[in-house]
Amino acid sequence: MNTSHFGEHVTIDGYGGSEALLNNKDLVLGSLSDLPAKLGMTTLSEPQVFWAESNHIKDPGGWSGFVVIAESHISIHTFPKRGFVSIDAYTCKNGMDTDFIIKYFTERFELKDTEVNFLKRGTKYPEGDIY
Amino acid sequence: MNTSHFGEHVTIDGYGGSEALLNNKDLVLGSLSDLPAKLGMTTLSEPQVFWAESNHIKDPGGWSGFVVIAESHISIHTFPKRGFVSIDAYTCKNGMDTDFIIKYFTERFELKDTEVNFLKRGTKYPEGDIY
Repeated sequence: MNTSHFGEHVTIDGYGGSEALLNNKDLVLGSLSDLPAKLGMTTLSEPQVFWAESNHIKDPGGWSGFVVIAESHISIHTFPKRGFVSIDAYTCKNGMDTDFIIKYFTERFELKDTEVNFLKRGTKYPEGDIY
Repeated sequence: MNTSHFGEHVTIDGYGGSEALLNNKDLVLGSLSDLPAKLGMTTLSEPQVFWAESNHIKDPGGWSGFVVIAESHISIHTFPKRGFVSIDAYTCKNGMDTDFIIKYFTERFELKDTEVNFLKRGTKYPEGDIY
């Protein structure tokens, strides 16, 4: 059985972002609505965003959002008071334009710095059905 | 401002899993319900699982599920006909027991092989509020 890599996954942790933008639920939701089409992906669910209460320790509260795309996902967790955001964009298309995604979120949340990991997912994915 | 890493993220891509188990929606949903408590995490949303139709190319169809935990997530994408599953477990707790999580999913889907990435997320996360 031939194999190829299943998908590509970029994680973006952003620093020094705008408190107001990171605290804007509509902006988080809008990003989850817009980005799949820009990446040529089909959504399987409506984007959803939840408020995370402060736990008075590490997490000062923020928005957590998620959209399922076929068959992968985009997630955004914001921490307005720390100027921090943690993003995953995982697609089953190969040749992801990571620079586009980094620029998209840098502009959207006015990030001063980003920390990026790029992963090839499922590098031994079978090219045909095995069952 | 002191910094520490925000969270820990393990990706598990599993191969050679049981077609029946990977095709079992209740098992996917149950994993998303059980695992947060086992990891000492608080869920922010009910776990949700969606059916992804076959696209007749790379994706032969399967279940995509996720649960938002404060403020991170667990996601599972299954591909029963390829015996493949792609899992993310991202928590804001440090000291993740990755072996436990790998074993949990290996047993649950009878995986023959796994491919694992471990990421420290937000390594420059501010220990206090900046706004």
